[in-house]
Amino acid sequence: MIPLSLHPDRLFSSEPKQREIARALYATVKNLPIVSPHGHTDPQWFADNEPFGNAAALFITPDHYVFRMLYSQGLKLENLAIPRRDGGPVEGDARGIWRSFAANYHLFRGTPTRIWLDHAFHEVFGIRERLTEESADRIFDAINSCLGRAEFRPRSLFERFNIEVIATTESPLDPLAQHSKIRASGWKGRVITAYRPDPVVDPEFEGFAANVARLGEITGEDAETWRGYLAAHRDRRAFFKTMGATSTDHGHPTAQTSDLDSAACEALFAKVLKGNVSSTEAEAFRGQMLTEMAKMSLEDGLVMQIHPGSFRNHNPQVLARFGRDKGADIPTRTDYVRALKPLLDRFGNERNLTIILFTLDETAYSRELAPLAGHYPILRLGPPWWFHDSPEGMQRFREQATETAGFYNTVGFNDDTRAFLSIPARHDVARRMDCRFLAQLVAEHRLEEDEAFELVPELAYKLAKRAYKLG
Amino acid sequence: MIPLSLHPDRLFSSEPKQREIARALYATVKNLPIVSPHGHTDPQWFADNEPFGNAAALFITPDHYVFRMLYSQGLKLENLAIPRRDGGPVEGDARGIWRSFAANYHLFRGTPTRIWLDHAFHEVFGIRERLTEESADRIFDAINSCLGRAEFRPRSLFERFNIEVIATTESPLDPLAQHSKIRASGWKGRVITAYRPDPVVDPEFEGFAANVARLGEITGEDAETWRGYLAAHRDRRAFFKTMGATSTDHGHPTAQTSDLDSAACEALFAKVLKGNVSSTEAEAFRGQMLTEMAKMSLEDGLVMQIHPGSFRNHNPQVLARFGRDKGADIPTRTDYVRALKPLLDRFGNERNLTIILFTLDETAYSRELAPLAGHYPILRLGPPWWFHDSPEGMQRFREQATETAGFYNTVGFNDDTRAFLSIPARHDVARRMDCRFLAQLVAEHRLEEDEAFELVPELAYKLAKRAYKLG
Amino acid sequence: MIPLSLHPDRLFSSEPKQREIARALYATVKNLPIVSPHGHTDPQWFADNEPFGNAAALFITPDHYVFRMLYSQGLKLENLAIPRRDGGPVEGDARGIWRSFAANYHLFRGTPTRIWLDHAFHEVFGIRERLTEESADRIFDAINSCLGRAEFRPRSLFERFNIEVIATTESPLDPLAQHSKIRASGWKGRVITAYRPDPVVDPEFEGFAANVARLGEITGEDAETWRGYLAAHRDRRAFFKTMGATSTDHGHPTAQTSDLDSAACEALFAKVLKGNVSSTEAEAFRGQMLTEMAKMSLEDGLVMQIHPGSFRNHNPQVLARFGRDKGADIPTRTDYVRALKPLLDRFGNERNLTIILFTLDETAYSRELAPLAGHYPILRLGPPWWFHDSPEGMQRFREQATETAGFYNTVGFNDDTRAFLSIPARHDVARRMDCRFLAQLVAEHRLEEDEAFELVPELAYKLAKRAYKLG
Repeated sequence: MIPLSLHPDRLFSSEPKQREIARALYATVKNLPIVSPHGHTDPQWFADNEPFGNAAALFITPDHYVFRMLYSQGLKLENLAIPRRDGGPVEGDARGIWRSFAANYHLFRGTPTRIWLDHAFHEVFGIRERLTEESADRIFDAINSCLGRAEFRPRSLFERFNIEVIATTESPLDPLAQHSKIRASGWKGRVITAYRPDPVVDPEFEGFAANVARLGEITGEDAETWRGYLAAHRDRRAFFKTMGATSTDHGHPTAQTSDLDSAACEALFAKVLKGNVSSTEAEAFRGQMLTEMAKMSLEDGLVMQIHPGSFRNHNPQVLARFGRDKGADIPTRTDYVRALKPLLDRFGNERNLTIILFTLDETAYSRELAPLAGHYPILRLGPPWWFHDSPEGMQRFREQATETAGFYNTVGFNDDTRAFLSIPARHDVARRMDCRFLAQLVAEHRLEEDEAFELVPELAYKLAKRAYKLG
Repeated sequence: MIPLSLHPDRLFSSEPKQREIARALYATVKNLPIVSPHGHTDPQWFADNEPFGNAAALFITPDHYVFRMLYSQGLKLENLAIPRRDGGPVEGDARGIWRSFAANYHLFRGTPTRIWLDHAFHEVFGIRERLTEESADRIFDAINSCLGRAEFRPRSLFERFNIEVIATTESPLDPLAQHSKIRASGWKGRVITAYRPDPVVDPEFEGFAANVARLGEITGEDAETWRGYLAAHRDRRAFFKTMGATSTDHGHPTAQTSDLDSAACEALFAKVLKGNVSSTEAEAFRGQMLTEMAKMSLEDGLVMQIHPGSFRNHNPQVLARFGRDKGADIPTRTDYVRALKPLLDRFGNERNLTIILFTLDETAYSRELAPLAGHYPILRLGPPWWFHDSPEGMQRFREQATETAGFYNTVGFNDDTRAFLSIPARHDVARRMDCRFLAQLVAEHRLEEDEAFELVPELAYKLAKRAYKLG
Repeated sequence: MIPLSLHPDRLFSSEPKQREIARALYATVKNLPIVSPHGHTDPQWFADNEPFGNAAALFITPDHYVFRMLYSQGLKLENLAIPRRDGGPVEGDARGIWRSFAANYHLFRGTPTRIWLDHAFHEVFGIRERLTEESADRIFDAINSCLGRAEFRPRSLFERFNIEVIATTESPLDPLAQHSKIRASGWKGRVITAYRPDPVVDPEFEGFAANVARLGEITGEDAETWRGYLAAHRDRRAFFKTMGATSTDHGHPTAQTSDLDSAACEALFAKVLKGNVSSTEAEAFRGQMLTEMAKMSLEDGLVMQIHPGSFRNHNPQVLARFGRDKGADIPTRTDYVRALKPLLDRFGNERNLTIILFTLDETAYSRELAPLAGHYPILRLGPPWWFHDSPEGMQRFREQATETAGFYNTVGFNDDTRAFLSIPARHDVARRMDCRFLAQLVAEHRLEEDEAFELVPELAYKLAKRAYKLG
């Protein structure tokens, strides 16, 4: 048996002076509640509070970080129980899947997935041995045995994880029934929604026109007209606010924004509704909708988040067989300086609007994002995202953004995950890496110690609450 | 009262071995004179030697690093006494501005601005407490009280800062009256000009045609013809040399160069003079002028500097209300490999020409700039520029450029500043970061100690003197 | 005399804990045999086993890293004995060249060239003093004296370097006579070829049409038809396999791939054969050939390597006077996500195909290459290439690629060199830097020590053998 332990100094510098400062900083934030202002957990978990399935169904099948790595080394997605779009058979033996995962656990060495999994095994399930081919069965059984117990149901874990508030992400077409159910249940856990309109603002989204028609039905607006379509958005935003929403989220291929006049908007909207638009027109429409959303945010106070730059569904065979979100999204080079200009020209100098920018293109940190956020009052920088939600990714973000944007133009951490069990681990990594960064500044006399102690709860907790209006 | 001190080991690695080497290296360069071959101080300071105004007028209103950060967090530029273009009222209470700055001083944590300001407070004004809301008034008064004394006038500070030579930057239309006055005064401080022709080579510069007309008047050349226009440049360059100029400087949106034949040059020049050229034509003309300037440099020996890649005046509202240079310039992705080729094809292999390249796009360091400078005899790499004139920026430059370009294809440090009081701090940061970098190489046995001691005065002093012909 | 020594801890972190772990890791791999799966040594050396020439002919004239740096500082290539295309005179005094090199040896401070040279001087020739102007003659004589001895002939050095296998790179037009001779000689050294078809797949390559015609003659296929041309490739690939080839290599300006139908391929091929194609057509043809090569690799099992992104022969004057490969190749921004899609759409999900990707654009590591290799089963990441084959380059590669691609989607080290004497040094640098990286992970509790000991021989030896099928 190979032991599993989480070292108390993990992720800190091994240089003794820096390590000592990092420890002291971390002690002041490690037990702060988790504020999770952006993510993709399923509200049904908290609405129904049913037990999670088995270890494989919990850790492998839903986690694209996990199965993309296994796939890259030749494992088949069917063999990991990834559901097929055609409903055809996939592997049904959870233990077999788990064994195959365990036999390949070495692939994750050096990745954040390994950190998150070991943390969940150790902290949530009390596992004290490393996952290997040899220990696979024991760990599988231990996790499954836990999952049957009341204290491992979603609400109990939510409380045990010390989550003060968590945001999920829903389409405007979602009736938010799960959120209503949570509210009606009397449970005190704060689960809020966020407005993610991609299916009804992206002409290239599957079923776009039908989605817009449905938006009209739900809201009673004539969503086939530009005016009615915008009114329908306003309506749904207001409804989302009743379910706690404080933000919107926009996952576009680029950061392009547009600022067309009304007539052009109407014409473009009529065209995209008919389908068969060019990619340039689709881009212009999505860009226009970012500007419209900014305008609505000025009215209703929702914070905007822009997550651009992912080439979604890059692998057509995986898309055809297994659908979206199967680990085949690849980052692309992303421009912000020209792309955001139409929106910034219109609203960049507002005092009552916040737009949080994310990137998958790290070259933008020092060149574009920090200079933009260090000037425009409406802009803030989101934390390192997706592939960059990792120790080295966080380190690069702080190193490349801080000198120009400072700390106060950033917004703390987002876990951005659908892997509920990884949430404490992810926040812990972010807190440790921030402590590490601050400790280096202090040890090198670039920041005074008292200031680091003032900053660390900002980075771990307060900035997120303020930026997302979760106070 | 929170004390303010400058730690003797600041910016050095906290690893004891590296720190010890860095200390020893730094001791040999910390008192070397300052060579400031590129910057934007106002020659009038040295010509008139009048006292500087109050602390706010000295540190806040003229410093775009300072007010862009305050603006990004919602402060208004009017409230920081930034002059309005329409002459409308702005805040006039210097103490009030200073207080508001002090209350927001935490925004600068982790930024180079904080390092420069603390250095100036401590070293120039003898302040021994940190700037906070509470200490704001005391520090304001202490600085103001100093400013009234003879030893805080520009020439005295110049001498106290141990400046061997400083270059300012002037337009060809500038009569250089201040420089003449300095020379006529008998004062020994060496203040030289540099030839910055943007207003007369950039068709998109405000008043371009009028500027060219004025250039003709000043020089007596027929500047409306291509031939006369070039002759006028030659004439002004010669005049600038009489005021000490050893270099020219070019702040273009991109690094594009052109090499058109005479007929095409004449036609393009005629067109740009008429106005309403396309952005492609404007780009071609600026690019051609870089090649023409290189040709003139071969004749008159002026060193060329190219500073490309800033999207100037990105915020139209700030531009309309407050004008240029108000913290709204944003870096963009910058290509050098294709852009410089026309000029390099013509002059790249010369032995009597030096072109110093700068960038705001750090991705170019290892991919383009170091490989180019490591081959072409005319190319040298300028130090990290603007947003990258910072500890992390300097570290990235050395890490990414040195292995391909070596140290001897770089040119030491430029402070590039209009903030006179920050000059000693900036050079000190550069010297410390270079000592840190060399110390790491020595501690890791990648460079011998005696070689580091030979290199460190090169980086701190000698390379700049040689590259800019200031010997 | 200034001593020359190689410190046993060179390239390791100076932080004592990390250094200690790095030492322990390194001890387990430092004596492993060298697997060199990609490079440009001359098979004639091993076929004829003639002594190398003098020190200058060995270290300066053939090494573009060396003479590009000297050229960048004003030395002339003629004076370094670089042969002129017109056959005109160049410097013939080897000792004089060596002296001039020694006088400029400081230019290489901080570069990998300095590390490789000092390693070769010390380890291969037993030199114990640093190369300086003063020691130049003694070292020149010492090296030359060695070169005359049997144990410094190519085969002896091959054995002394503990090379298990080395791949050279040949054009399909090469008869591989040297490889045959090596095989016929009975010598046990394993020297294999690799299939580098650039001269017959790149319509912009000098003499392309003639090369294709020659390919037809060699193979007896009608290479003027698309079908015959492909058959000719198959034929040569099979022949290269008889000379040990396990891989192909493709040095294209970009990573562009195409997947045209047969008719379009035939038409395009007919067009490129005629010459005068547009650069877009040339690009399309090269891209189609990558896809064709992938298809052939599925049949014959050769591993593909793609080396894109070099702007070759950037300096037309150097090209005209001295020819290709004279240090004037400059990296360019390189896209992979869109460029590789046609090939990936067709073959990305295969299990019996390996494509190893290289880059000169480090921004692609975290943004494109690691995400692609962490998903597609056919993709692996080659080590840092060319300008990035350096300590900092290796560090950036591991930091930026590992968290998304893991270690097992990488393929160990390639020395990629024509500088035979530098091979042990290059592999040693790679091993040290990998030990350093793993040591940091262990010291920071991001990886367990036993796992680091399992990984280090993978990175130093096993991954290369497996990826290149050299087992």
